[in-house]
Amino acid sequence: MTPVTETTGPARQHARESASTEILRWRAGNAPRAEMDDVAREEPLEIRVDGRSVAVTMRTPGHDKELAAGFLLSEGLIRKKGDLRKIAHDRGCEVEHGENILNIFLSPEVEIDFKRLTRHVFASSSCGVCGKASIGAVHQHFAPVESRFAVAMEKIIRMPGLLREAQEIFSKTGGLHAAAIFDRNERLLVLHEDVGRHNALDKVLGFGLFENVLPFDSHVLLVSGRASFEIMQKALAGGIPIVCAVSAPSSLAVEFARESGQTLVGFLRGDTMNIYSHPERITGHKAEPQSK
Amino acid sequence: MTPVTETTGPARQHARESASTEILRWRAGNAPRAEMDDVAREEPLEIRVDGRSVAVTMRTPGHDKELAAGFLLSEGLIRKKGDLRKIAHDRGCEVEHGENILNIFLSPEVEIDFKRLTRHVFASSSCGVCGKASIGAVHQHFAPVESRFAVAMEKIIRMPGLLREAQEIFSKTGGLHAAAIFDRNERLLVLHEDVGRHNALDKVLGFGLFENVLPFDSHVLLVSGRASFEIMQKALAGGIPIVCAVSAPSSLAVEFARESGQTLVGFLRGDTMNIYSHPERITGHKAEPQSK
Repeated sequence: MTPVTETTGPARQHARESASTEILRWRAGNAPRAEMDDVAREEPLEIRVDGRSVAVTMRTPGHDKELAAGFLLSEGLIRKKGDLRKIAHDRGCEVEHGENILNIFLSPEVEIDFKRLTRHVFASSSCGVCGKASIGAVHQHFAPVESRFAVAMEKIIRMPGLLREAQEIFSKTGGLHAAAIFDRNERLLVLHEDVGRHNALDKVLGFGLFENVLPFDSHVLLVSGRASFEIMQKALAGGIPIVCAVSAPSSLAVEFARESGQTLVGFLRGDTMNIYSHPERITGHKAEPQSK
Repeated sequence: MTPVTETTGPARQHARESASTEILRWRAGNAPRAEMDDVAREEPLEIRVDGRSVAVTMRTPGHDKELAAGFLLSEGLIRKKGDLRKIAHDRGCEVEHGENILNIFLSPEVEIDFKRLTRHVFASSSCGVCGKASIGAVHQHFAPVESRFAVAMEKIIRMPGLLREAQEIFSKTGGLHAAAIFDRNERLLVLHEDVGRHNALDKVLGFGLFENVLPFDSHVLLVSGRASFEIMQKALAGGIPIVCAVSAPSSLAVEFARESGQTLVGFLRGDTMNIYSHPERITGHKAEPQSK
């Protein structure tokens, strides 16, 4: 499959928010079709205040200055426009990385108490904050998935229904993300729900650890919402070869999956799915007779 | 309105994941009805490794040990069950707070490099990590909303449609969260999209700061997804009196809104909505004639 590239041509006005990538679009009973599709861009932004790194957030590029100013406002560090002396993307790095680093200089009158920051202080002080650096950092800890486990499409498309049935038993608030592991017999092994989708997946991984069933190398992970970089990173930590999401994946999720040997399925709804990476693990594109 | 309380009675099996609270359920043309409803619980969990605070995550209580173990696994700090010597909720604090602090002790063989942690290192070292402490910390910086701005229900229910129309112009990936501000004339003032919902709102706040239109005290914030503690906190930083979400709010979002003088509307879909706090800002429960 071709790499995820920034959109060009007629869709140029969307270039910063989305990226174009080759996918396989699949409907049960038909042959898969290779198509180009757009995915939302996700890249890290490092916010530096007076030279000090205060936050890294995974964001969609565009309006970074507004993002950083709003972040400082809601953290209580600034109150008004005049508190900002200068905001500019970093020029000290290569351009590619510089777009993901924003330098903010505050007016001399503003007293900053860095201890007030409540969120996401990033441990790394390296200059290379970009998607590639993020992927590289994860790969230092976790080898790509080599499992040859494969699942028939007809089984995959039944999983969202099984997840919903199980969720109806567990939850009734409508406000929870779900993460579930299916084993090679299409059996729901574990399901956890949480207001945070990364927490739901952490709970699933913790179950695997406690029950000594890691790695989940003959298993499918299904998440109820979108697939982000963080979801793919955690799935890799659990050794999961196939990750399915009911909603859309981000650009960095797709890139990460391709480089990590993970099969990534998105928009898994009804009898259709999009396959973003390593489609060799999804088999049987013709409808199979239902077993009784 | 009554406080958000942990569910008891027949729904006891859901007690840890959801909380029961009084809401106003409203359908256009009818009078609002007070009902009890369940919301997903959201509370901070502080994870401490060998006595050192390594992360605070906003999570749904329940399966905290799995959550913490999964987090350490995906951060590359542990590899196997045997790396964990002990996991236990904190007993040194009051019980209420202790449930939100998890102490983990690793086997002596495990070498930890705390610098490897990539996420969410919380600056606070206080013992009192609970919802109340989180709300209190935010209120140190931002006074409750006192705006008497009010909007007719008939106007509120048109906003999701206006948001979707605007989103169709901007985006085409289906993978983005949206945050939008409507002014007192029901005009969409600003819309931002992002893979992270808090980022979309930060961009909106940054716009307000740059354009000198803060506080948004005669405005409505509409978010495309759920309403979490973090969304309400950022809305308060912008002085926004009315916050509407297309999906569900969390328990901590509801508590925060009540204590901060914010009107919180959830499940804003079709011609219905749930009002979780300060309903006095939503007026006109009878359908009004459409102006031409």
